[in-house]
Amino acid sequence: MRVSTTRPYSSLSQKSQQWKPRGIRFGVYTVGLGAVYLVVQNRVNAEAPPSKPKYRISEIRKHGAKAEKIWVYRGTGVYDITDWIPGHPGGEVILQAAGGSIDPFWKIFSIHQKQDVYDILEQYRIGDIDPRDLVNGEVPADDVYDPFVQDPERDSRLKQHSSRPCNAETPGTLLTEQITPNELFYVRNHLWVPQDGPDTHKILVELPDGTDREYTMAELKSKFREHTITATLQCSGNRRSHMTQRSRSTNGLQWDVGAIGNATWTGVYLRDVLQDVGLSITELPKDAKHVQFTGTEAYGASIPIAKAVDPQGDVLLAYKMNGVDLPPDHGYPLRVLVPGTVAARSVKWVSKIIVSEEESTSQWQRRDYKCFGPNEGSKPDWSRAPSIQETPVQSAITSFREISAHSVDDRKALQVYGLEEDSIALTGYAFAGGGREIVRVDVSYDGGHTWRQAVLEEADTLGSKNWSWKRWSHVVPKREVGLEVVVKAVDEGYNTQPDTHGPTYNFRGNLATAWHRLSYEPK
Amino acid sequence: MRVSTTRPYSSLSQKSQQWKPRGIRFGVYTVGLGAVYLVVQNRVNAEAPPSKPKYRISEIRKHGAKAEKIWVYRGTGVYDITDWIPGHPGGEVILQAAGGSIDPFWKIFSIHQKQDVYDILEQYRIGDIDPRDLVNGEVPADDVYDPFVQDPERDSRLKQHSSRPCNAETPGTLLTEQITPNELFYVRNHLWVPQDGPDTHKILVELPDGTDREYTMAELKSKFREHTITATLQCSGNRRSHMTQRSRSTNGLQWDVGAIGNATWTGVYLRDVLQDVGLSITELPKDAKHVQFTGTEAYGASIPIAKAVDPQGDVLLAYKMNGVDLPPDHGYPLRVLVPGTVAARSVKWVSKIIVSEEESTSQWQRRDYKCFGPNEGSKPDWSRAPSIQETPVQSAITSFREISAHSVDDRKALQVYGLEEDSIALTGYAFAGGGREIVRVDVSYDGGHTWRQAVLEEADTLGSKNWSWKRWSHVVPKREVGLEVVVKAVDEGYNTQPDTHGPTYNFRGNLATAWHRLSYEPK
Repeated sequence: MRVSTTRPYSSLSQKSQQWKPRGIRFGVYTVGLGAVYLVVQNRVNAEAPPSKPKYRISEIRKHGAKAEKIWVYRGTGVYDITDWIPGHPGGEVILQAAGGSIDPFWKIFSIHQKQDVYDILEQYRIGDIDPRDLVNGEVPADDVYDPFVQDPERDSRLKQHSSRPCNAETPGTLLTEQITPNELFYVRNHLWVPQDGPDTHKILVELPDGTDREYTMAELKSKFREHTITATLQCSGNRRSHMTQRSRSTNGLQWDVGAIGNATWTGVYLRDVLQDVGLSITELPKDAKHVQFTGTEAYGASIPIAKAVDPQGDVLLAYKMNGVDLPPDHGYPLRVLVPGTVAARSVKWVSKIIVSEEESTSQWQRRDYKCFGPNEGSKPDWSRAPSIQETPVQSAITSFREISAHSVDDRKALQVYGLEEDSIALTGYAFAGGGREIVRVDVSYDGGHTWRQAVLEEADTLGSKNWSWKRWSHVVPKREVGLEVVVKAVDEGYNTQPDTHGPTYNFRGNLATAWHRLSYEPK
Repeated sequence: MRVSTTRPYSSLSQKSQQWKPRGIRFGVYTVGLGAVYLVVQNRVNAEAPPSKPKYRISEIRKHGAKAEKIWVYRGTGVYDITDWIPGHPGGEVILQAAGGSIDPFWKIFSIHQKQDVYDILEQYRIGDIDPRDLVNGEVPADDVYDPFVQDPERDSRLKQHSSRPCNAETPGTLLTEQITPNELFYVRNHLWVPQDGPDTHKILVELPDGTDREYTMAELKSKFREHTITATLQCSGNRRSHMTQRSRSTNGLQWDVGAIGNATWTGVYLRDVLQDVGLSITELPKDAKHVQFTGTEAYGASIPIAKAVDPQGDVLLAYKMNGVDLPPDHGYPLRVLVPGTVAARSVKWVSKIIVSEEESTSQWQRRDYKCFGPNEGSKPDWSRAPSIQETPVQSAITSFREISAHSVDDRKALQVYGLEEDSIALTGYAFAGGGREIVRVDVSYDGGHTWRQAVLEEADTLGSKNWSWKRWSHVVPKREVGLEVVVKAVDEGYNTQPDTHGPTYNFRGNLATAWHRLSYEPK
């Protein structure tokens, strides 16, 4: 099913018209792994339903992913989807449901939940579940496979926005260190956490001329030089809730300041692996324009080839995070790590890499993780905006602490700053994409009318460019603090943040990078 | 005098203390080509003035740059500066005055116009000009060499901000094409235009280990592969007048929207030349961190080595602009062209290239072309901010035209846009540094409350990245135009422009990239 991740929409659309099982003409007009959107252009002149054999669930289980005939059930209907799989626009991810219920997957890939898709499936119906396996006319929950059942436990200090899939951010007050501990690192999963160990995990790499090569984890580690870099990962939705609060409602998880973290990552250079497969990185073939990544669970994304082969690009196939094996939530046993680029491209649990003329056809590449003008509604022409890769300059306040001159301990802290009166201490982070270093952080205590410079924390980082956030702090006498505290940052290209969210508003709430403003009410 | 461009301040300061001619102890505490700033720490216990021989101007002329003894005169005093030259912090540029008056140069390098510097020169006085060569006690103007006398004629359509040196911008209404014609390209000279032809011009390239090599123009052209790129050059002060008008007074030429232009540039890759001299660009020596450029007239600047050796960096030693030899004002016969980087680093009339551990020590690298916080005054700690290299996203309106539905010609123009009523047509440019493409231009007719997308002009460009501006246009019915018309742009890293100038104000008025706003009063 490589076809579905390498072909452009147009070619897929043609392919789908080639097979017209049982007289139906399909038009696949939007395709992506997990974003199957089918329209039956001519409805079937329904024939009389065939006789309906009854099947036991134990019988259906025998038709799993490795069987000759692939069966699934939906509700109480049983389907042989063997002939459908080659044309499934979402690719082999459909095999995840083989031998069991497709319902939990369609709950996740919710775009299937429409009559047109039900109609297609119905063409493959071979019968019904035997009533002896039903309770009150339904399959008992225990018999429905739950892909999330093996998801790991998460640290209770993380703030969960959703659990299935898990999306959980680090509270700002816990983002105190240059390196974010693994257990506190924000989790952004699009699907479930696949179960695959270093002994079984393999990665297939394919070039435009069809050359391919498969590596085991052991081969990757022994064949290529190991590199460690320090890099910040940030979700494109970080601070989305601020855009919502200060502009208009946005569609997505309402992250505060904690969909970001900084860690060391150890692995091998993607460029070394691509060269090993046979890619000439100094004289690229003309059809080598993007590198597509697919995770075991089905998530997919791509990056431009220039980033992948840049000698200063530091793109890793990483197997360690902060010196230990990747935690399950962060891609164990192998993930892509694209420093300086929005985290959505650092595909976790990566099992397939394809050098292609096209971007990934996944919905996350083509119909998500883009920004449009503030006037453009929720149904934009997605092809008009580029997928987010490098991210703009960002900053946030992560802690706001009052220091009392009347407390012995606090008095000592104040002396460090040459202060002897009640004060306010701010800390936070600033980060820019593309390896551009943060060179200045400005803080305002009067809503942006006057400014002062925060102290930037020095840090040893690894890598060809500045892939890590800068921690900053500022302390000021309380009497100088007005009603609105503001932070903004400047990167080495002298890019700055926009003053307000309105002019960068987009309905998905991506890249909410306007000045971070906190209201202050002195006690 | 390579020393002065490669040594850090501290080492120069030590050197200056080594020679103490005639009992004076010097402390050179700020050094730069053309930014000589000397302080005599212990004033001389003045001895009785020596007897003062008289010299004819014809005699002084014999002590030019190639003579054994170098003389200059200042006012009516005559000086033998031979022993001073090795220690001159501004380097050999002082030879420009050899055999003539130093006054016109000190008018340009005005930092010399202080008693401390006069005192130093006085130590080298050997006599006075013969009264027979004086008129009313002064040297006649004709006998004072004018370094600007051979500057070329400029197109009368350019708007001159200063003539000596020439600084002239393109009026916005003439910035109509994707490629700016050579004669309309803005001129930003720091000094005079040197007179040097392709037969005599040589370029010296030096590596950190001392290896050096000199190339003639003919050698450059025959030895290396020729490349052509399309690239925008923009002065860091472009739109400075807007920052002044909308925030506070700034120190510098008050450019409007025309200190920018786009051209094709033809030459050889700097990286190829560096490799030819012997630099290992895949495994750089540790002390190869910057590449310093010096022009024949004395201007100097540097870029990070990473940009110089980046296979996608496209840094040129260019000898053609838009297909013809560089015009004198644009660096004939050879200039550096650093695409995606502020124009101040694209050194014209380049004659020396030094790979070094240090940035250029020129004032333009170290004490200019930087930005500070809006609160930081006119005497910042210059070392705290990075020199401007890549520039942030920028956009401007270059023409604003009313189209009348009552005119036959205009009606035809309106039909293209599907309009039949009085309308407004805007055009302009948008540009970002670092090769980041402009992906969206937003226009507002109500001061930034609501937005629409401009049409981006497609253009064929040459080069590894997007080094060229994007032209844009927008047409709207006149009745929909409010009192303030605004433009802002977005680059492929989704960087945007700040809403207002105040929060990016800096006393030098660099990088004035806030939204371009035009007041509109309907007739």
